[in-house]
Amino acid sequence: MHDTSMRPSPIVPTVDLDADGVQHGFLRLPYSRDESAWGSVMIPIAVIRNAAGPTALLTGGNHGDEYEGPLALFDLARTLDPGTVSGTVIILPAMNYPAFRAGTRTSPIDKGNLNRSFPGRPDGTVTEKIADFVQRYLLPRADFVLDFHSGGRTLDFLPFCAAHVLDDKTQEEKAFAAVAAFAAPYSVRMLEIDAMGMFDTAAEEMGKIFITTELGGGGTARAATVRIARRGAMNFLRHAGIVAGQPEAGETTWLDMPSDACFCFAEDDGMIETMIDLGDPVNEGDLIARIHPVGRTGLAPLDIRARMSGLLVARHFPGLIKAGDCASVIAVRVT
Amino acid sequence: MHDTSMRPSPIVPTVDLDADGVQHGFLRLPYSRDESAWGSVMIPIAVIRNAAGPTALLTGGNHGDEYEGPLALFDLARTLDPGTVSGTVIILPAMNYPAFRAGTRTSPIDKGNLNRSFPGRPDGTVTEKIADFVQRYLLPRADFVLDFHSGGRTLDFLPFCAAHVLDDKTQEEKAFAAVAAFAAPYSVRMLEIDAMGMFDTAAEEMGKIFITTELGGGGTARAATVRIARRGAMNFLRHAGIVAGQPEAGETTWLDMPSDACFCFAEDDGMIETMIDLGDPVNEGDLIARIHPVGRTGLAPLDIRARMSGLLVARHFPGLIKAGDCASVIAVRVT
Amino acid sequence: MHDTSMRPSPIVPTVDLDADGVQHGFLRLPYSRDESAWGSVMIPIAVIRNAAGPTALLTGGNHGDEYEGPLALFDLARTLDPGTVSGTVIILPAMNYPAFRAGTRTSPIDKGNLNRSFPGRPDGTVTEKIADFVQRYLLPRADFVLDFHSGGRTLDFLPFCAAHVLDDKTQEEKAFAAVAAFAAPYSVRMLEIDAMGMFDTAAEEMGKIFITTELGGGGTARAATVRIARRGAMNFLRHAGIVAGQPEAGETTWLDMPSDACFCFAEDDGMIETMIDLGDPVNEGDLIARIHPVGRTGLAPLDIRARMSGLLVARHFPGLIKAGDCASVIAVRVT
Amino acid sequence: MHDTSMRPSPIVPTVDLDADGVQHGFLRLPYSRDESAWGSVMIPIAVIRNAAGPTALLTGGNHGDEYEGPLALFDLARTLDPGTVSGTVIILPAMNYPAFRAGTRTSPIDKGNLNRSFPGRPDGTVTEKIADFVQRYLLPRADFVLDFHSGGRTLDFLPFCAAHVLDDKTQEEKAFAAVAAFAAPYSVRMLEIDAMGMFDTAAEEMGKIFITTELGGGGTARAATVRIARRGAMNFLRHAGIVAGQPEAGETTWLDMPSDACFCFAEDDGMIETMIDLGDPVNEGDLIARIHPVGRTGLAPLDIRARMSGLLVARHFPGLIKAGDCASVIAVRVT
Amino acid sequence: MHDTSMRPSPIVPTVDLDADGVQHGFLRLPYSRDESAWGSVMIPIAVIRNAAGPTALLTGGNHGDEYEGPLALFDLARTLDPGTVSGTVIILPAMNYPAFRAGTRTSPIDKGNLNRSFPGRPDGTVTEKIADFVQRYLLPRADFVLDFHSGGRTLDFLPFCAAHVLDDKTQEEKAFAAVAAFAAPYSVRMLEIDAMGMFDTAAEEMGKIFITTELGGGGTARAATVRIARRGAMNFLRHAGIVAGQPEAGETTWLDMPSDACFCFAEDDGMIETMIDLGDPVNEGDLIARIHPVGRTGLAPLDIRARMSGLLVARHFPGLIKAGDCASVIAVRVT
Amino acid sequence: MHDTSMRPSPIVPTVDLDADGVQHGFLRLPYSRDESAWGSVMIPIAVIRNAAGPTALLTGGNHGDEYEGPLALFDLARTLDPGTVSGTVIILPAMNYPAFRAGTRTSPIDKGNLNRSFPGRPDGTVTEKIADFVQRYLLPRADFVLDFHSGGRTLDFLPFCAAHVLDDKTQEEKAFAAVAAFAAPYSVRMLEIDAMGMFDTAAEEMGKIFITTELGGGGTARAATVRIARRGAMNFLRHAGIVAGQPEAGETTWLDMPSDACFCFAEDDGMIETMIDLGDPVNEGDLIARIHPVGRTGLAPLDIRARMSGLLVARHFPGLIKAGDCASVIAVRVT
Repeated sequence: MHDTSMRPSPIVPTVDLDADGVQHGFLRLPYSRDESAWGSVMIPIAVIRNAAGPTALLTGGNHGDEYEGPLALFDLARTLDPGTVSGTVIILPAMNYPAFRAGTRTSPIDKGNLNRSFPGRPDGTVTEKIADFVQRYLLPRADFVLDFHSGGRTLDFLPFCAAHVLDDKTQEEKAFAAVAAFAAPYSVRMLEIDAMGMFDTAAEEMGKIFITTELGGGGTARAATVRIARRGAMNFLRHAGIVAGQPEAGETTWLDMPSDACFCFAEDDGMIETMIDLGDPVNEGDLIARIHPVGRTGLAPLDIRARMSGLLVARHFPGLIKAGDCASVIAVRVT
Repeated sequence: MHDTSMRPSPIVPTVDLDADGVQHGFLRLPYSRDESAWGSVMIPIAVIRNAAGPTALLTGGNHGDEYEGPLALFDLARTLDPGTVSGTVIILPAMNYPAFRAGTRTSPIDKGNLNRSFPGRPDGTVTEKIADFVQRYLLPRADFVLDFHSGGRTLDFLPFCAAHVLDDKTQEEKAFAAVAAFAAPYSVRMLEIDAMGMFDTAAEEMGKIFITTELGGGGTARAATVRIARRGAMNFLRHAGIVAGQPEAGETTWLDMPSDACFCFAEDDGMIETMIDLGDPVNEGDLIARIHPVGRTGLAPLDIRARMSGLLVARHFPGLIKAGDCASVIAVRVT
Repeated sequence: MHDTSMRPSPIVPTVDLDADGVQHGFLRLPYSRDESAWGSVMIPIAVIRNAAGPTALLTGGNHGDEYEGPLALFDLARTLDPGTVSGTVIILPAMNYPAFRAGTRTSPIDKGNLNRSFPGRPDGTVTEKIADFVQRYLLPRADFVLDFHSGGRTLDFLPFCAAHVLDDKTQEEKAFAAVAAFAAPYSVRMLEIDAMGMFDTAAEEMGKIFITTELGGGGTARAATVRIARRGAMNFLRHAGIVAGQPEAGETTWLDMPSDACFCFAEDDGMIETMIDLGDPVNEGDLIARIHPVGRTGLAPLDIRARMSGLLVARHFPGLIKAGDCASVIAVRVT
Repeated sequence: MHDTSMRPSPIVPTVDLDADGVQHGFLRLPYSRDESAWGSVMIPIAVIRNAAGPTALLTGGNHGDEYEGPLALFDLARTLDPGTVSGTVIILPAMNYPAFRAGTRTSPIDKGNLNRSFPGRPDGTVTEKIADFVQRYLLPRADFVLDFHSGGRTLDFLPFCAAHVLDDKTQEEKAFAAVAAFAAPYSVRMLEIDAMGMFDTAAEEMGKIFITTELGGGGTARAATVRIARRGAMNFLRHAGIVAGQPEAGETTWLDMPSDACFCFAEDDGMIETMIDLGDPVNEGDLIARIHPVGRTGLAPLDIRARMSGLLVARHFPGLIKAGDCASVIAVRVT
Repeated sequence: MHDTSMRPSPIVPTVDLDADGVQHGFLRLPYSRDESAWGSVMIPIAVIRNAAGPTALLTGGNHGDEYEGPLALFDLARTLDPGTVSGTVIILPAMNYPAFRAGTRTSPIDKGNLNRSFPGRPDGTVTEKIADFVQRYLLPRADFVLDFHSGGRTLDFLPFCAAHVLDDKTQEEKAFAAVAAFAAPYSVRMLEIDAMGMFDTAAEEMGKIFITTELGGGGTARAATVRIARRGAMNFLRHAGIVAGQPEAGETTWLDMPSDACFCFAEDDGMIETMIDLGDPVNEGDLIARIHPVGRTGLAPLDIRARMSGLLVARHFPGLIKAGDCASVIAVRVT
Repeated sequence: MHDTSMRPSPIVPTVDLDADGVQHGFLRLPYSRDESAWGSVMIPIAVIRNAAGPTALLTGGNHGDEYEGPLALFDLARTLDPGTVSGTVIILPAMNYPAFRAGTRTSPIDKGNLNRSFPGRPDGTVTEKIADFVQRYLLPRADFVLDFHSGGRTLDFLPFCAAHVLDDKTQEEKAFAAVAAFAAPYSVRMLEIDAMGMFDTAAEEMGKIFITTELGGGGTARAATVRIARRGAMNFLRHAGIVAGQPEAGETTWLDMPSDACFCFAEDDGMIETMIDLGDPVNEGDLIARIHPVGRTGLAPLDIRARMSGLLVARHFPGLIKAGDCASVIAVRVT
């Protein structure tokens, strides 16, 4: 089931991935350190399984400061009745668990960005060991993969579900069908420029039906966005045929981010004032943000203007901004 | 003009508080430290003055991670035309400047919460020295005081302007008139239980017309809340008679927080799911938040239920919560 | 019941100290900080009460890296049947709770050593606020006080129970009777030279029967020393007449530390080799420890020799030692 | 004498490894950093050599918080008379010197666990450079290798000497003979499951007679365990024929750790209470430890029960424990 | 000999201040902390005493990153022959010892600036305890006091010796005579504006002959400035009549700093370019420094111009500068 | 123009390297981190270009605490008139920009020493990505390369310009001609022993005319050394034929560092006293530095004596020194 040419993973699961019923357990990853010579990282995992049927892998906490996914998945793991399931649901609600516990995008252990660490290494850092286990032991079991993201502490997004434009158009079509089933307020077709190390790509290269989300941000979760996540996860399982019934319908707006002109970057440090709110329309040349110098009063702010027309789908979240930070993202409606 | 029984403040202003015109400068606060033997903290200050008239003191950055105030005030300091002013506007857009530069509630130098440091001390910590200067050199000059707050990185608020219930009913009435002039979407009558060390109290005890705000939170600012702040500041100056014209009208809802039952505190660590969004109505006994254990899947969350009916005016912002954190605040409409 | 000339404590108990039955709750201490604008420290407290009878206050975690007390007291709080109690048992198993959670002697919040912070201040640091609450709201209720200590991470002790030599010989006699009832392997008569800020002194000055312990150290707890703590706590309650029955007898050796010559301090940094183990006899002039230079091989160690005869009751625990650290303590048997 | 296909080590020894007599010096490892542009790590080394005979390499401080080895070896380096030696004794009393100076298991420079860094790299981290030098320049010279370990700050062990079960039974037999000569109170046959990066394996793969120890722990050293280390080192040299005379005899108990069931891991954070002490007997199913929740009183602890019968050979040392930490280790007597 | 109305100092000297001969010892200051429950700070002290005569107190390391004083005084303590002394020389070569060991201006323990901590407190911070001991136990013994300073890591000075303009002109005259005897290349008459907490003032208020120095800076010492310090210390002792012989003569230039216009402060962060070197002449209006913005190329630097004519006596040392830092100091020749 | 067999650099320049005129912009290096999910490092770059002619690459801030280069190059970037240029001048005034902003030798992001990171990696650390971009996109464009260095915070140097002894004697001769044109007070022929990872070697291996400098140190810049840097940069451009006119002449002394005996390393921690100043002559066996023990008075310092005759060209800068630090460097005059 996994590539045996490599060293086996040091991770020891405390659940049996092939057993029926509900199991709550851990992926135990040995981690020797000053604070614990024979310590481990204990990554929660739940397996809900019932007889034959496809396998869905649901993941949250790929980045540790994004909460809609973990909230929906801890809830689902606790409440999903195996009697209503045909197949297997593997839930990793907090995949980069050290990052999730710290409330940070990356792991406090090794600063690893899990979503840039695939396919990982069994003898690498803690983050690389997690990636390797998912790559070699979990992904091969899955037919459907849903990886939850939000903006995290430093970005805020309009809530959307997305899949990638792929070379294999059959696979792509299936993925966009799953996006439609998820039924987020917005749906996005993404063309990945730099796929290096992404979980998305790892799943797609194995031919899995892979979808992802951005459901808010700021390092918090709103009641509205958690509801989107919870309904989307159930819709995804229904769409996959693992849970019976039709996905619950919901209106969605399809968006596209066609070019680099979608993104505006700061060229100075300062205090940012985003002039419009998420979802607001914008025309090319409009003032969308200003960076105010903070060393003294009386200085003019630096203007950031839209490089294309569309609507604001993402923005820098914290009040202070650094040169090089992404200030805003614009998308266009697909008609 | 100030209490001469104490040691003079070590702070040296680079502006003349009594000169007409526009001045942009600093309060230079000597601060010797390992990184600079003869260093200082340079707190930006602007003075816009024109002939006779009352004096308004406008302050932001009392807490360093609240941005509507600084955004409105840096802007006002740069754009207010002294030709349109009758009197004096003193602007401290980032009053606890070290905290503001760090993007933190308290000062990174001494962990001082400026709003709990009044009346301050000329020979105290950096934060206490700032409080002392404001207390003895700026507040005595002011007739009207507006201190901007928002929720900061760890709380989120419905946008409101507020004043305190005071013993002096004439002073109180004037303050609530100023709140009405500010014209935020919500207006709050606050009964301060624990006034120790607050800037509010320092101003009120000198008989000043003092109003304050909570205009959002999360350590960010939205375009909508910045507009509220900017309009509110101008309305306040118009109301004070410093800027000509009537305050721009706006609809407001008056709220009250009558008792301790408004506040719900967490009794466990975990991941918080607030079940309703800000402004939503709530009945006593409703589930308003759940704290999910994060150590493993399958455990029941801890329910937090409303202790009174009303609407949600504030909530814990970050996805993770600690025992003892305020989870939610409920207010009631004043009819 | 408490000194009303001072500002009231900001601490809010969630238990009713005057109610019968078993209550598990918190002392909620408001603590605003960057990580939580409206946060609190939640100090666990249990009250087991049944009708009339004396009151015992049992405290652990005065220093946060000492575990025999917390282990015995969390256990006692969970298992003590109010039906077997006549009077009141107030249990604070982790009195300096922030230190206890960090596993450190002092509070990570303010570096406060709780045992040097009495009588505390209601407007002081977090540690001073805890001291003040114990001083003004808990100690006055108590007749008997038992405060558990061990050596913590940097010292190791022979297990003993102790009381102070007091001016009030009746009070002193009662305290030593309680020490005898505790029945630790060793019992110590302590003459406090520098009592400033100690919890012991605060209790003794109110006329309470106060005993304390040192039950091991190194930042760990052994099964043997936890048994001593658990039996000692029950013996103390029996001796106080709160729990029925006679204290369980146990052999004890009485010790005295008559002078400064008991203590040896390091005058160099290095790696320490204690030449004898705890409880071993030693004669004046014996080599009791050596400090090895660690910068290179071939250098002679610095010898530390006993300044009096007796037995080794305490020693520096970590392998490395700094100039100024207490290397060893000798006591003499009281015959 | 070393693999010349690689880049030479950057380490410069200040001693001549081929010269007779006693030399005290350093392995100077260039280490450029912010605090010293042209700095180095200076690892103490001693060479005691006299004419013909075998070579023993004695190492301590492989982990920096284990003290029996360094105490015995700094002492031996200072006192071993070359006139009593036939052959060469190379002593590295603090092999991972940066870790030793910090008193931590791993290096504060790069968090390197030296015992998982072999064979190292000449162009790697500081820890990898140390491993590489030992691998290519010191190990090839040695016939006998003794590497001292203890439990460090987070584990505590019954004192034992050990060697590995090896494919080469002749080599294995010689190693166990050396273990017997060392004469620790306990002797262990170890079957290494995961040998990746270990110094042990590096030595064994070169065919060296390699033994190791665990002689206590907790980040301290007791007089009794230091005596075991000191006698063991001399016995090892006598056994090797480098120092004249027979090893000093001592009674030992042989132990085996036959399976994974020896190890118990924590699945929750909390305060640990180990119910038995090191060396105590235990039966399968016995309660060997409890993890007490520390957030409030009144909650039941999590029980840890023995998964096999035997005696307790190791335990978690600090009072607090994290999910994933090894709580206890059981071994069985070899009859 | 000292104010007995206060609590005694907790500091225990290991030397007898009243004994003849040479003594090398410590001021042991008990300092309980997480890293050492019963630890102390050990401040080196040397006493060289011989029969009758005045007492000189020589201090270095008042700020921990200034080295001319410690270098001269460790050397003097080791080499001064009591046979050549009439009276007493008390040497504290590293008065704020924790700061000195850390190489920082202030104490790493409490961030205390010793030279702003007088008269100190016996129950205060570590730094305040040192000040209190010097204030109450050492200063009263002294007739002459020499306190060495240099610029530390963040300032650089022309080498000078200085005394204060005092109300008591007899005392002032004696101090300037001692400055002249010291014979540094430059000599300065200082008018202290803000004397709060200074060691200087503490000594002067007791009527002592007090002189001080600034002998370079940058956190280093040059061979030339160490020679000035060493000669100056001996000259001071000769001038005091404690060491026989005449002070060694040396040419000096007397300087004055008549007003605030001597000092230029930075109003922006950036990289500083000081346009002239120490000792160079400057005319009012000259460009003496430029602060280059570091965020991008092509921006104009901020010019700092001399506010008076004179010569450059001090400058900001590090390459980067912060708003509020003192950029340069100008003094005028006294003719 | 660059090796296309590798992954392209993730760095996006905001300037067109092939356009005429003056451009001020950035190398934008995407850097996702906890503080900015979609953040970047913005490295300032300036391009001054005019028609045909050679290309010079001028770099400062290779180490972030060396200021003569950045001061000369920010100034040059701002003032160089393209009308006076024939060819292209590419200026990276702060090449390891994160280190430069932190004022540290290495990058605070990854502790990368840029000058040991060549040829870099497009998928490596931030420092390796900078090296890779310079290696593959900038160096290939250059004919002449000048990389500015100084001693940084921990070393101080006599001001010199240098080039390496090379196998290609034609290339070497051209480099030394450029050194002569630079006209620093001292000029050095360097024989590189360990060239691994150096920018110098990367440039030389491509056949570029490469020169470098050491122009002072201590983490500051003096007016005199900045003048040397500024004149040297212009001389270099004149020598390259990019700027018209002859290099401004200046007297230089040629030096050589013939062997390891040039370097003295500390073998103990302590306070260093360098007995002679930079440029002073020294004879083999002379005392050049002493390391004073700082734990107590009365101990003899450790003497460091010259291992060869010459003059002092570099020394340890900070007052404290660690075992392993380079204490001093001696060079010999080339006659």
